[in-house]
Amino acid sequence: MKKVEEKLEELGRKVLEQLEKGRDPYIKITQRSLGNVSYDKDKGFLVIGNKYSKRYYLNIAHTRKFMQTLLVASYCNELIKENKHAGIRELYYALKHTIEGTKKENTFENQDESNPIIEDLELSLNVLREELNLTADRRGYLYGDIVIKDGEDEFNCSKLGRGGWAVPGNVEEIEFKRVNARYILVVETAAMADRLIEEKFAQKNKALIVACQGQAPRGVRRLIKRIHKEKKLPVIVFTDGDPYGWYIYSTIKQGSINLAYLSNRLSVPDSKFVGMTIDDIETYGLENVTEKLKETDLKRIKEELEYPWFKTKEWQRQLKLALKKGVRIEQQALANKSLSFVADKYLPEKIENEIFLS
Amino acid sequence: MKKVEEKLEELGRKVLEQLEKGRDPYIKITQRSLGNVSYDKDKGFLVIGNKYSKRYYLNIAHTRKFMQTLLVASYCNELIKENKHAGIRELYYALKHTIEGTKKENTFENQDESNPIIEDLELSLNVLREELNLTADRRGYLYGDIVIKDGEDEFNCSKLGRGGWAVPGNVEEIEFKRVNARYILVVETAAMADRLIEEKFAQKNKALIVACQGQAPRGVRRLIKRIHKEKKLPVIVFTDGDPYGWYIYSTIKQGSINLAYLSNRLSVPDSKFVGMTIDDIETYGLENVTEKLKETDLKRIKEELEYPWFKTKEWQRQLKLALKKGVRIEQQALANKSLSFVADKYLPEKIENEIFLS
Repeated sequence: MKKVEEKLEELGRKVLEQLEKGRDPYIKITQRSLGNVSYDKDKGFLVIGNKYSKRYYLNIAHTRKFMQTLLVASYCNELIKENKHAGIRELYYALKHTIEGTKKENTFENQDESNPIIEDLELSLNVLREELNLTADRRGYLYGDIVIKDGEDEFNCSKLGRGGWAVPGNVEEIEFKRVNARYILVVETAAMADRLIEEKFAQKNKALIVACQGQAPRGVRRLIKRIHKEKKLPVIVFTDGDPYGWYIYSTIKQGSINLAYLSNRLSVPDSKFVGMTIDDIETYGLENVTEKLKETDLKRIKEELEYPWFKTKEWQRQLKLALKKGVRIEQQALANKSLSFVADKYLPEKIENEIFLS
Repeated sequence: MKKVEEKLEELGRKVLEQLEKGRDPYIKITQRSLGNVSYDKDKGFLVIGNKYSKRYYLNIAHTRKFMQTLLVASYCNELIKENKHAGIRELYYALKHTIEGTKKENTFENQDESNPIIEDLELSLNVLREELNLTADRRGYLYGDIVIKDGEDEFNCSKLGRGGWAVPGNVEEIEFKRVNARYILVVETAAMADRLIEEKFAQKNKALIVACQGQAPRGVRRLIKRIHKEKKLPVIVFTDGDPYGWYIYSTIKQGSINLAYLSNRLSVPDSKFVGMTIDDIETYGLENVTEKLKETDLKRIKEELEYPWFKTKEWQRQLKLALKKGVRIEQQALANKSLSFVADKYLPEKIENEIFLS
């Protein structure tokens, strides 16, 4: 596979060659529309097709975007050469300026203009933005017996007190030196991850705990994918029992439509879902601590019923059950049994007996 | 000072004594209203007064809250005895149940009922909720040359790669074994903290970097306060130049009205504000990368103009300048100069020459 620098230079060189031949230069941009995205059943994730458009310099409908594309590509090339990383908002600010000789024509008016250009480049060059040395917003932490090497530093993520390791936005360059775990448990809320840390769940069950603190950010997704692939650890997802939690699972497993073209780098198609499920309410006697679904939740569930990867018998039954009962159930509701219930009974029982929703 | 367990037991014993005397038992609750909060100019933070109310069991307007208070106090007592910690949402779920002998009378209907009871207890017993073994939601990370001991673990927060240490919600029990730093730099956004980590700002300037990722959560505030107090490090705050950023600074420095009664445990009255300021726009030639203030921002600034701690000449001038110019300036806008500008020039220049807004 070509190195990222080579791809960026090739992009520039092609434009130059066209100019030297006196032609109107263009850049090939892979299409990101729904029509170019499909669900690959065998691979188990969303994939991108081959459709592309040509972005021409001399087509005034294209000119602005053409120049923005070259500007961003050239900036990323510099970042890589200097071994620096920039946030996507930094990139926007770094490149924003009034074009010389114009009165008030800015390269970018706001970040909504620069973000899609980054996605265009990722897609058309088939690289992750992290490989362009662009860093995603970060959130989430990792706790468990894994030794990570980052630059000069080497540390064990089970030796950082109750805090754990704050996962950076870019994990391309870290190495996993040693792992002593049977699986990765991805947990939606920090409160639940902290419960499991306090109960010594990681030690007792040989688990790595990853708190994603809401929808999993790119750094966390890439971290999960890399540990899964390089260390052959299964991924088990534990979220609230509601459409938002199920969507977190869905993103980790199959990717999102917006990032479909990166699915193979970010998704873990054989992720398992351990809970919460609507069935858990009856199984564990949690009727007293459910919450009512809102209108927006109901709407979201109806959308999820249509997702290809939720078309299995079990998921269809579960989603319809949620609609019928009209309730949701949170991870933390398990505290109603006892604080240690989730760590001593709920999770071990389900995980060891492989009671997953699939 | 009495231990927390003793305070909780005293609360229970007093109720019992009243019952044994055949009296209608009550609990003294310190008032949390604005009328009982004032700004102590000498101390430099918000303080709580001596006004209290009596919450009676047999007053039907009080009965529900009276019982909830005892329920929460008793649960916290158990937590402390078992050396366990619970999130405030876990507490809600743990205590929620239908009262025996009633048809559908629940102890709590939602968390909006249990949260104020926790605040009542903190205030009336003069303890932090962390001391009641209740854990706040966590966010934020710490990077820099400080050795922390948490339980059996001891680690240096400058040896954790680019990630840093994820700050837990409860930092009461950690110890600072060794610190090699001149000051604490509190940074609003993760993107900026990551920029400074990449530029080796912590090493070059002997700084501890704390990313609060928005409004500083309690764990982060308490961490800052403890390092400041125990290790005598000054606190310097670096936020976006907008009303939201200034409010982050204000909370770290003076506390919030809601948590005024905890100010002395959470605030650092002599925190310094390094930026961003509206003056920075002209000083550093950032006119091209400002953003327009929205209606809500303008309203927020007008409110801040009335805060006692923003009544200084410099802050009044600054806030009025923001209103006049109608713009805001983000930390990351400094990338417009160059990525390393903030680390090589902006911050060192301002910090070493003590160019703070006060």
